[in-house]
Amino acid sequence: MPYRAPVADMIATLKHAAGLEQALADGLYGDLGLDDITAILEEAGKFAGERIAPLNRVGDREGAHFHDGQVTMPHGWKEVYSDWTAAGWNGLMAEEALGGQGLPCVINSACLEMWNAASGAFGLGPLLTQGAIEALQAHAAPELKAKYLPKMITGEWTGTMNLTEPQAGSDLSALRSRAERAGDGTYRITGQKIFITYGEHDLTENIVHLVLARLPDAPPGTKGISLFLVPKFLVNDDGSLGARNDVRCASIEHKLGVHASPTCTMVYGDEGGAIGWLVGEENRGLMAMFTMMNNARLAVALQGVSIAERATQKALAFAAERRQGKAPGWEAEGMSPIIEHPDVKRMLATMRASTLASRAICYMLAAEIDRAHLGRTPEERKAGHARASLLTPIAKAYSTDIGNEVASLGVQVHGGMGFVEETGAAQHMRDARIYAIYEGTNGIQAIDLVTRKIGIEGGALVAAEIARMRGIVADVAKSNAVEFGLTAARLRETVDALETATKHLLGALANDPADAQAGATPYTRLFGLALGGTALAQKALKMRANGVSDLARAEATGLARFFAENIATAATGLAETVVTGGHAVVDLDIPLAS
Amino acid sequence: MPYRAPVADMIATLKHAAGLEQALADGLYGDLGLDDITAILEEAGKFAGERIAPLNRVGDREGAHFHDGQVTMPHGWKEVYSDWTAAGWNGLMAEEALGGQGLPCVINSACLEMWNAASGAFGLGPLLTQGAIEALQAHAAPELKAKYLPKMITGEWTGTMNLTEPQAGSDLSALRSRAERAGDGTYRITGQKIFITYGEHDLTENIVHLVLARLPDAPPGTKGISLFLVPKFLVNDDGSLGARNDVRCASIEHKLGVHASPTCTMVYGDEGGAIGWLVGEENRGLMAMFTMMNNARLAVALQGVSIAERATQKALAFAAERRQGKAPGWEAEGMSPIIEHPDVKRMLATMRASTLASRAICYMLAAEIDRAHLGRTPEERKAGHARASLLTPIAKAYSTDIGNEVASLGVQVHGGMGFVEETGAAQHMRDARIYAIYEGTNGIQAIDLVTRKIGIEGGALVAAEIARMRGIVADVAKSNAVEFGLTAARLRETVDALETATKHLLGALANDPADAQAGATPYTRLFGLALGGTALAQKALKMRANGVSDLARAEATGLARFFAENIATAATGLAETVVTGGHAVVDLDIPLAS
Repeated sequence: MPYRAPVADMIATLKHAAGLEQALADGLYGDLGLDDITAILEEAGKFAGERIAPLNRVGDREGAHFHDGQVTMPHGWKEVYSDWTAAGWNGLMAEEALGGQGLPCVINSACLEMWNAASGAFGLGPLLTQGAIEALQAHAAPELKAKYLPKMITGEWTGTMNLTEPQAGSDLSALRSRAERAGDGTYRITGQKIFITYGEHDLTENIVHLVLARLPDAPPGTKGISLFLVPKFLVNDDGSLGARNDVRCASIEHKLGVHASPTCTMVYGDEGGAIGWLVGEENRGLMAMFTMMNNARLAVALQGVSIAERATQKALAFAAERRQGKAPGWEAEGMSPIIEHPDVKRMLATMRASTLASRAICYMLAAEIDRAHLGRTPEERKAGHARASLLTPIAKAYSTDIGNEVASLGVQVHGGMGFVEETGAAQHMRDARIYAIYEGTNGIQAIDLVTRKIGIEGGALVAAEIARMRGIVADVAKSNAVEFGLTAARLRETVDALETATKHLLGALANDPADAQAGATPYTRLFGLALGGTALAQKALKMRANGVSDLARAEATGLARFFAENIATAATGLAETVVTGGHAVVDLDIPLAS
Repeated sequence: MPYRAPVADMIATLKHAAGLEQALADGLYGDLGLDDITAILEEAGKFAGERIAPLNRVGDREGAHFHDGQVTMPHGWKEVYSDWTAAGWNGLMAEEALGGQGLPCVINSACLEMWNAASGAFGLGPLLTQGAIEALQAHAAPELKAKYLPKMITGEWTGTMNLTEPQAGSDLSALRSRAERAGDGTYRITGQKIFITYGEHDLTENIVHLVLARLPDAPPGTKGISLFLVPKFLVNDDGSLGARNDVRCASIEHKLGVHASPTCTMVYGDEGGAIGWLVGEENRGLMAMFTMMNNARLAVALQGVSIAERATQKALAFAAERRQGKAPGWEAEGMSPIIEHPDVKRMLATMRASTLASRAICYMLAAEIDRAHLGRTPEERKAGHARASLLTPIAKAYSTDIGNEVASLGVQVHGGMGFVEETGAAQHMRDARIYAIYEGTNGIQAIDLVTRKIGIEGGALVAAEIARMRGIVADVAKSNAVEFGLTAARLRETVDALETATKHLLGALANDPADAQAGATPYTRLFGLALGGTALAQKALKMRANGVSDLARAEATGLARFFAENIATAATGLAETVVTGGHAVVDLDIPLAS
């Protein structure tokens, strides 16, 4: 099953749900026009579908090969990666002064979705490299930037994020890797890091590791962590490669999915210490890393969207071909395509509507990140930053949950064939599973949303978001279009539920933090339903107003209605869970055995 | 992570949620007492935990081996299977006259859960053999029974169900395999069957295939299908094995999970026709097969429970050991065990409460199957049969959905480790995925529930079930126990929602069947929540009354409350979806590409 980049829906989502036209009118993107954006996405879609997508299967079957410290990528990967970087895709969003294209986050996000839809294991490498580029752009000294960034931006070198250690996963305060000052301005790094994505591979001649470690005199906990740049090969002043640094890959993991993405255990300083350079200030490394992690959270959210899109395309194609039984009202000869059976159609509609809703949330976040950087006034940039902070955990948790659910539905639509690996549906489900875990588990995202985000501006930020959504609900009601069915009523219930749950949590945060945390996951889902449901409705309204084709309009309206009447209906129960269910969690004493 | 059979909860569930004490008091089980049952379950639990559980991992890694038509089971499997049959576990429920133990379905069900929790791939073989035994007991001619059943009951020979063909999966009317009358009372079978579980293996010296095929003069569709017994080796009159029959395994599937269970493509009649014997009447084969499939549906439902139990045990053990961060209120030194974090605790509580709820539904169904067979009056047997018919699709769909959801949560609880295959959590998720698909996909179960079951007795059967649940809700309310929190209120809403949705569907069935089918899946979930929620509450009430240990009582009450306040809260939204969401599905026109 080939991958066809959904450029039309991407553009429609950017325009009608993520405020692209407003941002263009506001001059945020300079000379860039809608035609340029469409042309870029079409070109990216072509590369993703024609070149990357065929790697996905071989990557899964072969996996990355580990032998004696070396990692060899699967057959065909190196060539495609090389062509991909040569075409300039790696540096889309990077600074122009350093060789990047300086394009906005909305474009990069749509492209990230495509690379990852074509192959999640392929998309992961550049995802990490972009994160490393952002951290260096924001925090590294000029000479470090000049030496490393140009080749990272072209993609000639890749980047990694080295956070996790066996005892320090979600909680980095337990981190033990050490850094000693060498006296010449460099540092010597020792320690072991696990789960390092693309920590070693043969796609490029050098790899630039960003590593968290502690100085000998660092305070304990997260305030004593520094960030270091540790190249695989040292780089001479003329830019040529020098000696091998004291860092090696000890093993790679045997994983459920994304087999072609090497997940490495990295050992630093076996022979006395890897040479590293400080990024940012001593003991402020976590701050620098968070710059990178926040954008990586959007990128992982997009991986959720991407796998949902890919799984949906595959299931739709199968359901249109596969014939079994007779659907109600089926008058033709023989068996119906299974897509005609209402229960199968429900699965497909759930897949498609959820995919589009999560895409809308992610693109909304991308647009807000652009506003945070490109806004015309400090107030606008500040507002963009605040809203991006709020949307980030929701985008990450909701979209990656959707990625998992949709990929699992994709298996179900295929019936017994879905369980057979050759069909490919199972790979999507396996690949999707990590997205809800890495870059902060979805539980961590939910806790971030509840404990750090909804309280921003004393709750005014969420209140504004709720008011914005109420505006959309009112517009749907005003449209009086019969095709919307109960969309307005259901979305009103959804937003009401979000408001009720928010009020409860803001109260609980002050006097009952365990109760607030117990409600974090259902609350995050509820927020996703409200954002996604209203985004789909807004998109449908604008498509109706803008006279697009009858079919696209009908689909947009039908999916918005489906989402409101069949998916967002979970909202009231989720609010009930948040408001009155927390103590049942906190008070419960669970024995460890039956 | 070893498997520890949850015998205490199994017994508590049988007693307090599945009416075991009443059945014993009614004399349904003859001399059998509660002590006997406990002793049998403890013995089974020992075998499952000590002998079968260690096979699970090697089975996953090695898988079944296929070479030149032969299937070799993974290392160690043959010996354990042989010891398992020697201990008499295969024939628990089979007729005593033929060498079985004639024990009730409730005991066999608890045991099935254990074999499958220990290893789903191991449990599958006996599951199919038991189904074949039941079909033969009910439909085969006496001489066929005498020849085949004794060795199938001991487990010396295994049985298979050959239904699926490439074009005939959920819809068996499209079946093409042929049977010709040979003139001597036997038949010659030709055709290809796919997805045949344990179609070939080296555990036993013979395999008894039950095969659906069409006679030359059969009417088209499902009314022209006959059932045949086709042994791998012909059996001489003295019981010794004769010639190899004309049936072979052409290949086995490379699957997402249950790797050790060989899923075979079987070819019949390559050399002129496999010799088969008719089971039941010509053209009535589907009826006979349904006997077997109905009980197999309970067995697969139990597989859902089993994988949920296993995944929960593993996640609980991990969460008690793994330390990260500080939970709210954590006063001790260092990091908290992650089980203390409210969001992780929510996951674990969801896993445990859902597992116990699905167990209760399955055991309730098993008890009803016993009543259908052992009831003292024709009325009682008829009532048992009717209620079992109603519960079957709910048990199958709800429990296997829970199996998938709980196994996926198990991966999430493990964080990054969950994605690494060596951890074992991922295997549970992979194995679980087939349960929602085979023995009738969960969509088929939902449609069965809506189109064939809720209308039984003009809706009176469901109405009685709802009245029964209302009685439990009233008892919880009457108990006035503060530990139940809002359990009564929430379960009342749940049962109200079920009643509302049922009324809508009964109406829609008559005049809008597509709308009814569109609501089938959310309705089935809703029914599961109501059954499961009230069952946990009933169990907790009875445990409180019966003076069991404080801890067990507190846990039962706490989990019933958690389920009511945090899981069953989905009910109202599901009813809304069923009642007003169907047309959004039916009217939706989904384009095949974005």
